[in-house]
Amino acid sequence: MANPIPRICIAMGDPAGISPEVLAKLLARSDLLKLACVSVIGDRRVLAEGETVAGVKSDIAVVALAEIEQAKPGKPVFVDLRHLDPATLRQGEASAAGGGFAMRNFREALLLAKSGRVDGVLFTPLNKLALKQAGNPYPDEIRWAADVLEWKGPCSEYNRLDDLWNARVTSHEPLREVPGMLTRERILCAIDATAAMLGATGMARPRIAVAGLNPHAGEGGVFGREEIDIIGPAVEDGRRRGHAVEGPFPADTIWIKARRGDYDAVLSMYHDQGQIALKLLGFERGVTILGGLPVPIATPAHGTAYDIAGRGIADPSATIKAFETLVALAAMRLALAAA
Amino acid sequence: MANPIPRICIAMGDPAGISPEVLAKLLARSDLLKLACVSVIGDRRVLAEGETVAGVKSDIAVVALAEIEQAKPGKPVFVDLRHLDPATLRQGEASAAGGGFAMRNFREALLLAKSGRVDGVLFTPLNKLALKQAGNPYPDEIRWAADVLEWKGPCSEYNRLDDLWNARVTSHEPLREVPGMLTRERILCAIDATAAMLGATGMARPRIAVAGLNPHAGEGGVFGREEIDIIGPAVEDGRRRGHAVEGPFPADTIWIKARRGDYDAVLSMYHDQGQIALKLLGFERGVTILGGLPVPIATPAHGTAYDIAGRGIADPSATIKAFETLVALAAMRLALAAA
Repeated sequence: MANPIPRICIAMGDPAGISPEVLAKLLARSDLLKLACVSVIGDRRVLAEGETVAGVKSDIAVVALAEIEQAKPGKPVFVDLRHLDPATLRQGEASAAGGGFAMRNFREALLLAKSGRVDGVLFTPLNKLALKQAGNPYPDEIRWAADVLEWKGPCSEYNRLDDLWNARVTSHEPLREVPGMLTRERILCAIDATAAMLGATGMARPRIAVAGLNPHAGEGGVFGREEIDIIGPAVEDGRRRGHAVEGPFPADTIWIKARRGDYDAVLSMYHDQGQIALKLLGFERGVTILGGLPVPIATPAHGTAYDIAGRGIADPSATIKAFETLVALAAMRLALAAA
Repeated sequence: MANPIPRICIAMGDPAGISPEVLAKLLARSDLLKLACVSVIGDRRVLAEGETVAGVKSDIAVVALAEIEQAKPGKPVFVDLRHLDPATLRQGEASAAGGGFAMRNFREALLLAKSGRVDGVLFTPLNKLALKQAGNPYPDEIRWAADVLEWKGPCSEYNRLDDLWNARVTSHEPLREVPGMLTRERILCAIDATAAMLGATGMARPRIAVAGLNPHAGEGGVFGREEIDIIGPAVEDGRRRGHAVEGPFPADTIWIKARRGDYDAVLSMYHDQGQIALKLLGFERGVTILGGLPVPIATPAHGTAYDIAGRGIADPSATIKAFETLVALAAMRLALAAA
């Protein structure tokens, strides 16, 4: 059976950093563009600047928002909102204009997803300060996306670094609130969702390692009981459901095992438990995926890299990896829906 | 001024792992033994086994516990308690006999320190399970040492990996209790102690990076307020006292900066915040130091490595680094006491 071809919308991110040039480099990859019907939302002039910096030229037809269905495999289309003249922008600097540009693009892409016109959304790096200056009220992209999509169900951020994934039970919450948020049901739900996420990339039975909460995973209850009372039982529940899940493991040593390939994913109990490790392992090469929403959303893990913007040296590989991951996730979802 | 020569007591750790062989390799280093008056506590037969495995022979005089003052620079002495015949022991296995051996040695070393007869204690790796089988009631070595030394003051574990140090405000506590334990005073005390610890190794004004507690160090109060209400003010207090201290920084990115040499020490708010990073950075090469006690105590960061015990391939460099760090700390303390 041929893989279904998903419709992917790319929202242009912050215009003052490397976003335009890495996008230009992605759009120059005709081999990748064949994998999806790609529409890009932004300002054609900003992309043109990125093309000049990157030294590439993309053959992309400009269409109206109502016409994105003209996108075909290998024939991307560009929705030119003409809302930012790059001549008015200072490269390498956060600005309300730049933040507003990125906000508008992401919102339009989400609305296309909401109306069922695209199967996945990719966005290039955003700048938090610029978004704030533009009045963005959301603490993170997943709450932003859930709000625009009017999605009330569980959703979660996943990180992918090469072949290793990280998922988390809690995310952008004060650490003080984390222990109280951990329930057996919530952790089981995260195990299910992680298995489903990795399954959607083609993995039959992903090996999931669950981290404990306390030092030494509680050391048999001496340094905390969540491992015994909550996390351990949730892991057992997951195993009974057929998942290849193990734990809880001490959070400081599990990454050594994961790094050497013993597991496909680590499920963390809180944000920094995974992020400290991922950042040290080189997560700027990685991909962030927002999962559990009506459509998958992906973005390269690195930031806007203002310090190297405009020099043509930005590495597009994380953006490419984000695109590939998103295409796989969206295609699998289409295949499942058709089955 | 010549450096004062400290008196160092080495307590033999778990006999079934690599402890005996790394000790044998340390004792074969005559260049290092010149730096201190070294006494070793254990069973000479266990050390002899280690020597055979390591392929080295140490010229160490056996003396009674009452005679450790015979130790001179370059002329270590061995207190042979004759409490464990290695022929009765299975290599690579935790046992009550092995745990009891290590417990007794550490206790005798601490009692020597308590009576002012040694200036620092080094112990080779212990095995947690063996200690438990032998009835050791302590959750960690620092509480054990503080109890034997009858020390009521603040004391804390430090980790050293090459030139990078890690200190922490809380340690082997349930994560649930951590936020409530963080006070401005306690963090300031930890900043002071970290500066003093690194100062005692010869660093004039160590650069200390303080980690936040919450994701993104609270993101300006959105994900928690401890950075604004407690940690930030403590950092300010530390700066007013003349320390080169900065922060609070997001816990996931501070290690990138520390790894590239921007800081001499990272002060973590809780155990895993530092340990996740250190383990990934290769902490098995590192050293753990118990600071704040009447005498400094050091140990290599790696464990008993039962899997490679007896093969002669154990790397003694962490033990050597622990010895060197301990000698420096003890010597500085003697110099300060004499000044």
